[in-house]
Amino acid sequence: MSTKHLIYMPLGGAGEIGMNAYVYGYGQPGKERYILVDCGVTFPDMDGSPGVDLIFPDVSWLAERADRLDAIFITHAHEDHVGAIGHLWSQLKAPVYCRAFTAIHAQRKMEEQGQDPANVKVVEPWPATHKVGGFEVGFLPISHSIPESSALVIDTPEGRVIHTGDFKLDYSPVVGEAFDPKLYAEVAKDGVLALVCDSTNVFSGHPGRSEATVGPEITKLISSQKGMVVATTFASNVARVKTLAEAGVAAGRSVCLLGRAMRRMIEASVEAGVLSDFPSTVTVEDAREIPREALMLIVTGSQGERRAASAQLARGKYLGLSMADGDTFLFSSKVIPGNERGVIRIINAYSEMGVDVVDDNNGMYHVSGHANRPDLLELQNIVNPQIVVPMHGEHRHLREHTKLAQNAGRMSVLAPNGTCVALSGNTPKVVEYVETGRTYLDGSVQIGALDGVVRDRIRMALNGHAIVTLIIDENDEPLGEPWVEIMGLPETGRSGAPLVDVLEADLAQAVARADDRVLIDDDKLDELLKRTTRQSANDEIGRKPEVTVVVSRLS
Amino acid sequence: MSTKHLIYMPLGGAGEIGMNAYVYGYGQPGKERYILVDCGVTFPDMDGSPGVDLIFPDVSWLAERADRLDAIFITHAHEDHVGAIGHLWSQLKAPVYCRAFTAIHAQRKMEEQGQDPANVKVVEPWPATHKVGGFEVGFLPISHSIPESSALVIDTPEGRVIHTGDFKLDYSPVVGEAFDPKLYAEVAKDGVLALVCDSTNVFSGHPGRSEATVGPEITKLISSQKGMVVATTFASNVARVKTLAEAGVAAGRSVCLLGRAMRRMIEASVEAGVLSDFPSTVTVEDAREIPREALMLIVTGSQGERRAASAQLARGKYLGLSMADGDTFLFSSKVIPGNERGVIRIINAYSEMGVDVVDDNNGMYHVSGHANRPDLLELQNIVNPQIVVPMHGEHRHLREHTKLAQNAGRMSVLAPNGTCVALSGNTPKVVEYVETGRTYLDGSVQIGALDGVVRDRIRMALNGHAIVTLIIDENDEPLGEPWVEIMGLPETGRSGAPLVDVLEADLAQAVARADDRVLIDDDKLDELLKRTTRQSANDEIGRKPEVTVVVSRLS
Repeated sequence: MSTKHLIYMPLGGAGEIGMNAYVYGYGQPGKERYILVDCGVTFPDMDGSPGVDLIFPDVSWLAERADRLDAIFITHAHEDHVGAIGHLWSQLKAPVYCRAFTAIHAQRKMEEQGQDPANVKVVEPWPATHKVGGFEVGFLPISHSIPESSALVIDTPEGRVIHTGDFKLDYSPVVGEAFDPKLYAEVAKDGVLALVCDSTNVFSGHPGRSEATVGPEITKLISSQKGMVVATTFASNVARVKTLAEAGVAAGRSVCLLGRAMRRMIEASVEAGVLSDFPSTVTVEDAREIPREALMLIVTGSQGERRAASAQLARGKYLGLSMADGDTFLFSSKVIPGNERGVIRIINAYSEMGVDVVDDNNGMYHVSGHANRPDLLELQNIVNPQIVVPMHGEHRHLREHTKLAQNAGRMSVLAPNGTCVALSGNTPKVVEYVETGRTYLDGSVQIGALDGVVRDRIRMALNGHAIVTLIIDENDEPLGEPWVEIMGLPETGRSGAPLVDVLEADLAQAVARADDRVLIDDDKLDELLKRTTRQSANDEIGRKPEVTVVVSRLS
Repeated sequence: MSTKHLIYMPLGGAGEIGMNAYVYGYGQPGKERYILVDCGVTFPDMDGSPGVDLIFPDVSWLAERADRLDAIFITHAHEDHVGAIGHLWSQLKAPVYCRAFTAIHAQRKMEEQGQDPANVKVVEPWPATHKVGGFEVGFLPISHSIPESSALVIDTPEGRVIHTGDFKLDYSPVVGEAFDPKLYAEVAKDGVLALVCDSTNVFSGHPGRSEATVGPEITKLISSQKGMVVATTFASNVARVKTLAEAGVAAGRSVCLLGRAMRRMIEASVEAGVLSDFPSTVTVEDAREIPREALMLIVTGSQGERRAASAQLARGKYLGLSMADGDTFLFSSKVIPGNERGVIRIINAYSEMGVDVVDDNNGMYHVSGHANRPDLLELQNIVNPQIVVPMHGEHRHLREHTKLAQNAGRMSVLAPNGTCVALSGNTPKVVEYVETGRTYLDGSVQIGALDGVVRDRIRMALNGHAIVTLIIDENDEPLGEPWVEIMGLPETGRSGAPLVDVLEADLAQAVARADDRVLIDDDKLDELLKRTTRQSANDEIGRKPEVTVVVSRLS
């Protein structure tokens, strides 16, 4: 096969909500020139990735072909689209294209990781376009919850592709450009080969509501409260932060932003000139002097994050401010699945303080930034693509979105991470499956998700850890008896004696009985000490710990 | 104060949904005679209690006064009400009263923990009553989701208390006795001092629906499916298992129960004669031979538990059965907050197999076993208590339930775990706060939640673990250099050299430079080695691990 083809392949984002990274390629098979769309992160959790700081898509497939990567495009400034650029850029080394506001974030992320921010190119939106390799790409404004969110118009020799990025159909989005159906119809009028489309809300059956519907309800809520009102949302949801601040001011309160991420996001938006009419806020110092019935705080920590302002306030004083009986706390947000425990912990802590907690109230105080099921169909109808390729979603979202498109009479292809789809021709075709995965940022180190490091942490958390040391003298005889330290194990078990004493006694016996051939052989000795420790612990405490053996030979 | 008083004090269940344990006492302060209502468990999670097997309320307060404990009453056979009885009975040593079906479970739990099941007394329901200490207690049938669920009528010299246990107002509950408002009105007609009431669903604003409404909808769903149908619910939700089985049969399918807990619960119910009309089921062996369009499995694992049947099927074959493209999986259940990740993992695995997953569909295929907000008010109106004492809920539930009762014009008292409330007199009064907490079953050992064992596990999971060993000879000189083993840490960091080499080099330097006064002092040497390891690791991998130091002295 030497015919040139157009391929699409997700490296991240098509198997999870988060860590978006989509490759497009054009050329002869094996010689394609590539572009990458988005380079995001996802967040670790205690269940599956304890101790990990951030999660990136494993881009090694693309890194091995970096000489054929012509550009990286970032659709918008949310962490799951731009958050990995600084960390992964040294493997990819291609120019990064974004609109001005997104570029502020991308450049900062480059700088923070010691990369040259000049690699980030600021570009104008559609109708401006940018030729890279076999592609010509334009940033087509689309409504979401952060300024300058854009779909990409990707023109290829095979036809036009529209890659939505994250979006909703919002005609009054509070920040950023409103969705303009005429613009999309115009762009699509000569035919669209493929719509590569956000799947996040495919299970939400009702049409999405505009950000503009939220403010009046929140104003009403705040006006009826007697104490301090504290509201939280995602720091990066610039639209909502503005909605909240305006609602606070409309209710006659001074507004104070708490939490570094939120202040930084708003400052960046103001500096970039995309948020010129944000209400004036007061400093924390001033807030302390304002009567609580005249004060509103907007804080980070909508997902119950332990270090965010919401959690700090739930534990007591934060920057001299504290919640009290009669105050109100508003979650202007949804809980991301998996974060429920952290959020509920905060709600109960506030309950103990006598604070009334208000949630999104079935959408009255929160709307999503993503297109719902009917909105996805509406966009399909406007753009009328030959093929719908669902992206940004777990497998269940992608599958449902595929069925939705097919039931509407369109071709659609289910392409989870690593699926290489040829979009050329009359039907999309899977041409290859590529190994993909996750890279963990662990402290300052990048490790593979399957390297075993995190697996060992989980094992220690589930089983505890016993450390056995033994000294073997110059004659290959034990010098003294094995010594045991434990961590994460009960101090006593069935017998009532200290666990370490029980383990040491059993180990001493095992060593005393051991054959010379075992004592001279590190592997056999290691195996004997491990097995004995595990059996002894199991008898005593009903649990087989992880065991580390250190044999020191004096020779 | 030598006047006798009536007290109520939760040891568990009033601060969480789970591990119910409520003490009632009557007598002179400090000399009360006690009864305990329920003795349940709650379940661990990776976030807060990794490696733990089960969680009990810490009953040490009551155990110290066990000579004044006259009886334990179990309201029904759910784990969060009966699950801890075998584990905690040796501390309490009082007769256990339950109705026949509950007794089957209580007796088995006693036997499993080596306690004499004869301590479990089978009693008849109301109007039978049982005199214990200053109390006279009767089991008043109430509707829930398991047979023989009962409220307790607790007569005291201060008046009558009704303790609801778990309940809903279901006039056609599929299993167990229907709620009988006339019976409750009759019991309450001479006045009720206090209604101690389940708070689980206080945030659900609409009236609860009967279990009987679920079956027809599920039958319709099953009838319209072409492939195998697999449904899951809590194994202990006997009512739902029956509803599902009847729906399967009504849809013309053979029904097979998968999962030990579910089979055992149904068998126990049938044996006890409380489930005489359960549809006949087929064995797993037979199920393998039945065409999938004629088969329905009812399986354990509604919360995504890794070892349950639902998760096993999601991973592939289970007992010779497997899911396939075109099959349907129904969650006839709600996800308990905190279990979302496990459930979503299964849904995505099924999605990859081409299985359609159906959730409760806004209550169409699932109703709760607990009374909703309007139902709580309805019960208050029927019983007309002087005081409402919310129990079984997190703090937020208890607080909301207290407000609900107060807004309805009743006295109510917010009494989280450890709050001792005197119910005598004209107003309830908090007379004491007692230290309460959690006991972990960890392997075969009971440990306190604050013993530090689990904290150490969490630290190892978040930070990794480095083990440093050093031998000091008879002259207090290092024999060789420090040796490092790591677990749960990256193998290489910034320098590219193996992490253990970097740590060992830095440790060797630190030891070489160390003063004699450090080398002869175990504490100082330990501190030096720990500090050096943490600093060195932080430089190399950006993370300060947990460190265990083992110094062996040849003296």
